[in-house]
Amino acid sequence: MTTTWVDIPQDSPFGLDALPYGSMDTGDDFAHLGVRIGDQALDLTEAVTELPGEWSDVVEEGNLGVLLAAGPEAWERLRADIQTWLSDEAHRPVVEKYLVDLEGVTMLMPFTVGDYVDFYASENHASNIGRIFRPDSEPLTPNWKHLPIGYHGRSQTVIVSGSDIPRPQGQRRTPDGDVVFGPSIRLDIEAELGFVVGVGSERGSSVAVSEFDQHVFGVTLTNDWSARDIQAWEYVPLGPFLGKSFATSISGWVLPLAALKYARIEPPARDVPLQDYLKDVPDQPWGLDIDIEVQLNGEVVSRPPYAQMYWTGAQMLAHTTINGASVRTGDFYASGTISGKEVDQRGALIEMTWGGRDPITLSDGSTRTFLEDGDEIVLTATARGRDSRRIGLGECRGRITPAR
Amino acid sequence: MTTTWVDIPQDSPFGLDALPYGSMDTGDDFAHLGVRIGDQALDLTEAVTELPGEWSDVVEEGNLGVLLAAGPEAWERLRADIQTWLSDEAHRPVVEKYLVDLEGVTMLMPFTVGDYVDFYASENHASNIGRIFRPDSEPLTPNWKHLPIGYHGRSQTVIVSGSDIPRPQGQRRTPDGDVVFGPSIRLDIEAELGFVVGVGSERGSSVAVSEFDQHVFGVTLTNDWSARDIQAWEYVPLGPFLGKSFATSISGWVLPLAALKYARIEPPARDVPLQDYLKDVPDQPWGLDIDIEVQLNGEVVSRPPYAQMYWTGAQMLAHTTINGASVRTGDFYASGTISGKEVDQRGALIEMTWGGRDPITLSDGSTRTFLEDGDEIVLTATARGRDSRRIGLGECRGRITPAR
Repeated sequence: MTTTWVDIPQDSPFGLDALPYGSMDTGDDFAHLGVRIGDQALDLTEAVTELPGEWSDVVEEGNLGVLLAAGPEAWERLRADIQTWLSDEAHRPVVEKYLVDLEGVTMLMPFTVGDYVDFYASENHASNIGRIFRPDSEPLTPNWKHLPIGYHGRSQTVIVSGSDIPRPQGQRRTPDGDVVFGPSIRLDIEAELGFVVGVGSERGSSVAVSEFDQHVFGVTLTNDWSARDIQAWEYVPLGPFLGKSFATSISGWVLPLAALKYARIEPPARDVPLQDYLKDVPDQPWGLDIDIEVQLNGEVVSRPPYAQMYWTGAQMLAHTTINGASVRTGDFYASGTISGKEVDQRGALIEMTWGGRDPITLSDGSTRTFLEDGDEIVLTATARGRDSRRIGLGECRGRITPAR
Repeated sequence: MTTTWVDIPQDSPFGLDALPYGSMDTGDDFAHLGVRIGDQALDLTEAVTELPGEWSDVVEEGNLGVLLAAGPEAWERLRADIQTWLSDEAHRPVVEKYLVDLEGVTMLMPFTVGDYVDFYASENHASNIGRIFRPDSEPLTPNWKHLPIGYHGRSQTVIVSGSDIPRPQGQRRTPDGDVVFGPSIRLDIEAELGFVVGVGSERGSSVAVSEFDQHVFGVTLTNDWSARDIQAWEYVPLGPFLGKSFATSISGWVLPLAALKYARIEPPARDVPLQDYLKDVPDQPWGLDIDIEVQLNGEVVSRPPYAQMYWTGAQMLAHTTINGASVRTGDFYASGTISGKEVDQRGALIEMTWGGRDPITLSDGSTRTFLEDGDEIVLTATARGRDSRRIGLGECRGRITPAR
């Protein structure tokens, strides 16, 4: 394994084998395409003018858009070039000029979202929600192990990490059955992994499970903020709408699938035989060994393991397109809440507190069932890398502001 | 009322008081912004170079995009200019050069769709679907009269009238409880009215019912194709996904709200008191007297009346944004299936045939429960205009092709 000449800690999760991309405002009010190394980023939009390769068109707009559409061969080639630039001392004099400290950088939306779909791929999460919402029924609906359940969300409110989250208002039904209007009183998080589509497909065709990495560029950490009281009142029969549509935060850094090479693991055993179009490809697993941490006001409150997810990103994409629906560059889909088997591995407050019944206690002695104004949620994550090193995903941060 | 010098039938629904806009390929493989008059269209992209006013930026891209964003004052001014050009003989020598016959025109998507939301605003439709799908429950869910139920759909498969509709494939559950995969065998239509957003709003704010016509530009006829077998198996608990996402057809002509001035009527009486943000504004009703015809292979099979819709387009927009979700130029939302009280006023085959129990018989003696390959559906509609004249909406056409 080559090493970088950039001064980063030995155990940094943002070494040459991570290299996530993001869109940065470095202080000049322009968008710059950056690639992260340690706690710095190489400003590609500026640097490529002095570096070998034909990358000026790819970096010009300052976000991932053109790179996403460029396809897997270009993704691989740019990554190899960057690894060379950051490891070969010959490039150091040029590259060093364009390293920026992340402290002075504001992250922008890394790409323009096409369609946004949210899945429900964690068996633990779906079972918990079923038990909480429908205590008299089977926890999983009959379709759950036959197909990855998903629904379309609002693409324009997918926003970058760091954006404030005004508390949504809406209708809810009180325990007495009254219908009232006001700020949500059950504001929650959903810790998820998001998938960013690079290469699209035609309407009328579909994308096979085996073609996943020819279409999907990479992953983001995702927090699909949820107003449980609004959602509970509205969602029968057509699914969640205003309980979700006010905000979905994603990390500013998009980690390429190439960085997840050593994190690929077999997904859980399938209890129900799958239709052909959903079958996992032997020896090409898309389960992912990614460990997530959920921080509430700086305190870790949960550690959801992505490795336990039942449905893979490859199956989600195959399902989305099996009816002939197209995908296009910038489409974004998320896994749904990641919850492990254990209580301290749940990715949403509604599960951690069992519908608000069991408050969690923070180190300052305060308790939470759902989020209060001023609360800040930060998601971080690492994936398994080569030789048991860890690969970093960028953080996903958001703070609740009072209802307007 | 001024009249046009263009040669159109006396009773044409596409006179000076209609004037829908569309994006046309006139044979040169470029998009031209057109405005319809009779069975011709004025090619605005070409004509404005020789006409008074500063419209070149608005027409340059050949679709409605720039006009939508330009806002209500510009919408009103361009419409007034067009009415002058088409009625004042002084402009005839110039304008006549740019009139094109619609027979030689291919309609293109009139605008790029931002987010797409589909509502469920017909009480008759929701009640019928409730009785068919959940015969042992109340037909309407408890929330139905408190809020306009809606969900996000797939924006990139909103396609223009005339596009073929390949039969979708997917999972369905047989009456025996087996889960099988194959082409949908319950392919259906939904006759709807669509609303096109011109002026957006900020995340964190909301749009009042009274502000509807400051944000929404106009309407389209819409057919939200639905695979009932796929939908029935997938939709609990998160709503429709693949049963809808393969295609939604819209008319190539977008009729401005200004043309619906005389079609505005009071919506049905509200049985349940509404939250303030959903209240109808006195003397500013947004019920609409629009009569729709559904043709199957050239034969009228239903005449849904939009006048009976419970929720208005203004209420749908207010609801969409009440949680702080933004809207933006090109967002599109549809009413949901329009069904009247009578059997021959239902806007979907599942209602006309009561879930497939009562086939309809066509004049050639053939019967239908759901759509067969080769079937063509055409929606047409007119709205009430001045002095009991009718205003035309453009047709919405689509033909089923075999599953690929």
